[in-house]
Amino acid sequence: MNLIYTLDLIGTFVFAISGTLAAAEKRFDIFGAAVLAFVTAVGGGTIRDVLIGNTPVGWMKDLNYLICIGLAISVSYYFRKHIQRLAKTMFLFDTIGIGLFTVLGVKSTLATGLSPVIALMMGTVSAVFGGVLRDVLSNEVPLIFRKEIYATACLIGGLVYILIRKMGIPEDWVIFISIAVVIGIRSLAVRKGLSLPRIK
Amino acid sequence: MNLIYTLDLIGTFVFAISGTLAAAEKRFDIFGAAVLAFVTAVGGGTIRDVLIGNTPVGWMKDLNYLICIGLAISVSYYFRKHIQRLAKTMFLFDTIGIGLFTVLGVKSTLATGLSPVIALMMGTVSAVFGGVLRDVLSNEVPLIFRKEIYATACLIGGLVYILIRKMGIPEDWVIFISIAVVIGIRSLAVRKGLSLPRIK
Amino acid sequence: MNLIYTLDLIGTFVFAISGTLAAAEKRFDIFGAAVLAFVTAVGGGTIRDVLIGNTPVGWMKDLNYLICIGLAISVSYYFRKHIQRLAKTMFLFDTIGIGLFTVLGVKSTLATGLSPVIALMMGTVSAVFGGVLRDVLSNEVPLIFRKEIYATACLIGGLVYILIRKMGIPEDWVIFISIAVVIGIRSLAVRKGLSLPRIK
Repeated sequence: MNLIYTLDLIGTFVFAISGTLAAAEKRFDIFGAAVLAFVTAVGGGTIRDVLIGNTPVGWMKDLNYLICIGLAISVSYYFRKHIQRLAKTMFLFDTIGIGLFTVLGVKSTLATGLSPVIALMMGTVSAVFGGVLRDVLSNEVPLIFRKEIYATACLIGGLVYILIRKMGIPEDWVIFISIAVVIGIRSLAVRKGLSLPRIK
Repeated sequence: MNLIYTLDLIGTFVFAISGTLAAAEKRFDIFGAAVLAFVTAVGGGTIRDVLIGNTPVGWMKDLNYLICIGLAISVSYYFRKHIQRLAKTMFLFDTIGIGLFTVLGVKSTLATGLSPVIALMMGTVSAVFGGVLRDVLSNEVPLIFRKEIYATACLIGGLVYILIRKMGIPEDWVIFISIAVVIGIRSLAVRKGLSLPRIK
Repeated sequence: MNLIYTLDLIGTFVFAISGTLAAAEKRFDIFGAAVLAFVTAVGGGTIRDVLIGNTPVGWMKDLNYLICIGLAISVSYYFRKHIQRLAKTMFLFDTIGIGLFTVLGVKSTLATGLSPVIALMMGTVSAVFGGVLRDVLSNEVPLIFRKEIYATACLIGGLVYILIRKMGIPEDWVIFISIAVVIGIRSLAVRKGLSLPRIK
């Protein structure tokens, strides 16, 4: 699980950077930026933990998540211009992040004995609701409610995880395959400009 | 409890339709519409469950609620125009919904041993905070903060439930009477254009 | 603890007044004002309680908090003009309030066995997130994300509490010293017009 734990921390770091950059655009001060970084990075998993009754919530028990977020804020503060040049790298790690957050969310929900349907929902919530909270706190309409295929990629990746996890494949591989599905779908959607239909 | 369970599912269905229609007005995509439908339908009860420590929250344990919400989204998607012609029917079921959600919220809070005052609050939260979350996620000021008598009807209906539930009347009747009070007050308020005073 | 309990209730009262006044500015009705008063007064502590798993949340177990909030709404409704003349008194009690809420938040988080870093965060959340919820429900960008030193005063006061609480000073004094630090820092910041830097 070492690689997975590392990816989880990197995902947290990248999400926190995205929160800090959103705060900078809104001209928030450092405190506001810290709140936004924090909420973007762990907000989704926090909502999941609260809903399934897994309290105190996850990041309270492992300070490495806080340290990653603190680092992300500092890096954003001192190297903002450099980060903006790394858009492709950021996109990659953000997508790995949502894929991993989905899978870990599904996994921890299943562990409480809840049904796979609920686990799939909670996995997607873990991945995308940090961004929803970020947008609500910035007084914006949540981006993912009208954006390209984003949550959908999580839903499909989570579904793949649920379907293949009992096939005897080593767990790390199950996770990597599910994340790869998320990355594949999202990359394709962005490249082809795909998006979900609207209600007329 | 069979009729009451059925009404609960119908209330969930109608609330989910109202969430989907709000999403359509905001030009959200299907994912955004699903989130809004979901939050409108079960958000109030979820907040109640989280606050009183009833986790995993209610709808996670009975998939019929999710199925109703899924149905509501499909129906809204394919029959939006027809629904808009059914405004009176929607209003009726919405009002039955808030009445029932209030009563069930009061009931489940009392069951945890909390005081009737808190139960009354939590009943009203169950009924109206789904709509508050819907408005917050749509980046709107919550409608019920300046609308006609709506939460007030829930408060009075919940109070009636608390007062008469130990008088020896069969429980189903206690519930029907309380819901009837909610329907009566709200209908009267809408017809007479009544609303709460403001703070000057 | 009698004086501290009294201060806690006064802090709740003052926060509820600030919520009611925000509602009046937004032209909410009495119900909206009650929600905003309530959320401003106990929202921060509620988020803390939910995150650390302390449910049912605190104010549900002691109705005096609700009574204070009810009083605050009545007072705001009937004496709004007088309150606005009391700006300095309100500022003082608001600052005592955030100081005390911080300390009590740190204390109750430490009591669950969580680490001091998390306790410090949860203390600050207790003090300032009621205001964040008030602003989100009013469809405003949270004021403290771009305002003067406010949360920072809480963080430093909370840190002082954590550092000195095991030095053998009587607990009441530890609390008073920590609150004094919050008051001192915030007053200084307001007088000198200090604020946190932004991310460029």
